[in-house]
Amino acid sequence: MLRPSFLLVASLAIPTPALAQSTKPPPLTIEQQGSFFVGGRNVKSDTLSTLSTYSSSGTITVDQIYVRYQIPVDAKKTAVTLIHGCCLTGKTWETTPDGRMGWDEYLVRKGHPTYVIDQASRGRSAANPTLINSVRLGKTPPGETPPIFAAGHEAAWGIFRFGAEYPQVFPGMQFPLEAQAEFFKQMVPDWLATLPTPNPTVADLSELAIRLNGTILISHSQSGIFPFQTAVLNTKGIAGIVAIEPGACPAANGDLKPYIDMPTLVLFGDYVDLSPRWAPRLKMCRAFAEAVTKAGGKTELVVLPDLGIKGNSHMLMQDKNSLEIADWLLAWIDKHIEQKGQ
Amino acid sequence: MLRPSFLLVASLAIPTPALAQSTKPPPLTIEQQGSFFVGGRNVKSDTLSTLSTYSSSGTITVDQIYVRYQIPVDAKKTAVTLIHGCCLTGKTWETTPDGRMGWDEYLVRKGHPTYVIDQASRGRSAANPTLINSVRLGKTPPGETPPIFAAGHEAAWGIFRFGAEYPQVFPGMQFPLEAQAEFFKQMVPDWLATLPTPNPTVADLSELAIRLNGTILISHSQSGIFPFQTAVLNTKGIAGIVAIEPGACPAANGDLKPYIDMPTLVLFGDYVDLSPRWAPRLKMCRAFAEAVTKAGGKTELVVLPDLGIKGNSHMLMQDKNSLEIADWLLAWIDKHIEQKGQ
Repeated sequence: MLRPSFLLVASLAIPTPALAQSTKPPPLTIEQQGSFFVGGRNVKSDTLSTLSTYSSSGTITVDQIYVRYQIPVDAKKTAVTLIHGCCLTGKTWETTPDGRMGWDEYLVRKGHPTYVIDQASRGRSAANPTLINSVRLGKTPPGETPPIFAAGHEAAWGIFRFGAEYPQVFPGMQFPLEAQAEFFKQMVPDWLATLPTPNPTVADLSELAIRLNGTILISHSQSGIFPFQTAVLNTKGIAGIVAIEPGACPAANGDLKPYIDMPTLVLFGDYVDLSPRWAPRLKMCRAFAEAVTKAGGKTELVVLPDLGIKGNSHMLMQDKNSLEIADWLLAWIDKHIEQKGQ
Repeated sequence: MLRPSFLLVASLAIPTPALAQSTKPPPLTIEQQGSFFVGGRNVKSDTLSTLSTYSSSGTITVDQIYVRYQIPVDAKKTAVTLIHGCCLTGKTWETTPDGRMGWDEYLVRKGHPTYVIDQASRGRSAANPTLINSVRLGKTPPGETPPIFAAGHEAAWGIFRFGAEYPQVFPGMQFPLEAQAEFFKQMVPDWLATLPTPNPTVADLSELAIRLNGTILISHSQSGIFPFQTAVLNTKGIAGIVAIEPGACPAANGDLKPYIDMPTLVLFGDYVDLSPRWAPRLKMCRAFAEAVTKAGGKTELVVLPDLGIKGNSHMLMQDKNSLEIADWLLAWIDKHIEQKGQ
């Protein structure tokens, strides 16, 4: 009975024969799993709704982050927290577009309690629609409508470095482009520009890290700066920082104190120097890593091709060699970040 | 190592000592888990963005549903699909606000492959922001801004029947009101009124049911009508319908053919007759159930107090006796819906 159900689901998620050729992993035993929210503040408004069926006045809660977690049996490793990037949600870390295991499950299988969040105002973390309704009601000028953006497939193509521009493909590309339609379904509208700096997610991550009493913050892209900003708030509970292709690193000439004793990895994929969007970011992060190192700190910057790992896009946690990269990352974590229970 | 981490997380999710008094469940073994999307259509637009960093023109994918699933080892039961209601996401079925196990995990533990969705335009299922940007750019009149509503705590209080009105509490209330702050964080803006009828979720559910080759569609509240509308599209793959406190049932004087051979349960909690919002809906569903029964069909309507189960709110899957209700529902399913593998 199970088998037909499994196979049929697999056919949904897998437009390619990739998984059919791979070995099915053994069952996974979970000590505990669940979901909860961190943070949040109450907002009173008279423009909650413009519909007669729902009151226009009342209180809503915003700025919280949704967190889903799994803890493996006999967890021996430090908890990891996975933080997605622009226009995406926690789905980033789950089953890949071509149906392979995501990092969320892989890290659990490798012994890490794993926490996956949706940033504030994204996915299952509530956004605040009151200003939109205020515009609809004529109380706010249209020009002040919140700037909610969606990245189109064509623009995302270059941003995620599948190729120089849509629909060109970099030679040796590891992203499973045959499943691009499934990937594009992961993209959601982004309310980032409606939020203050630092993003409310940052204070929430600090609260989460403190309550977990130790977690490695693994960010991606637009959330790249979040773990660093979290460390500025409070280094407590942050066991280490892994910034995957961060949209920004802290300024090399800024206050480096929060980062000096923090085990930190900044990781980039391939083709970065071919991208006008990403080349300056790599350069900025390189300057930051060098400044921290010069100050006696522990920040390491790695570009995958320098390790002989080639062809990786910006979405390297979904690339065809995603688990190979995860294995390398796990070894880095084992070497550089003290593991609880060891 | 695990224990401190677990306890600290538990303290996050559980503002009450409820779980501390309960027995920790044994580890859970999963045959397979993951997530994927069903459905979706491409939309071209010139108002994807009003920001210089993201192109205004391009293609996005909308109307798909996000699906997360877990399949237990040796699954002997038919798959279930959990469909949340208004202003909420798939989080509805996960860990309760006071930190107890959600139906999503409980059903897996009872042998059912379990699929949890986010409705189209909700949570991790992309909404379409292009009209909002069109208003911002002055291309669309403000009065045509999409009516995105948020249910305030105060209005939700009565709608979810915690009491007649905020902050009154019905006597014997089973909802864990001490954790109401955590519950209110589950609520997200609702784009429902921006979508056509039937909601795109309906066609997606049909596709999911057909690919799963049999699933029980379990809806709640605003999604209550969806399984019925799915059956109108195609009964294929729908093993049964469980409508929990549906916002509407099909008209008793309409075409009942799609429902005659469909094992169907409509389930309501307590205090329904005290609610001007819900009493007419119960009445409508009762008329529907009677009409189907009269036509030789299998629709059953149950109001929990009639079984001696009292004090349940509209959010009965989160009430303190949620697993007692799940046990009753599982027995109903075993009795009325053919279980695969048996």
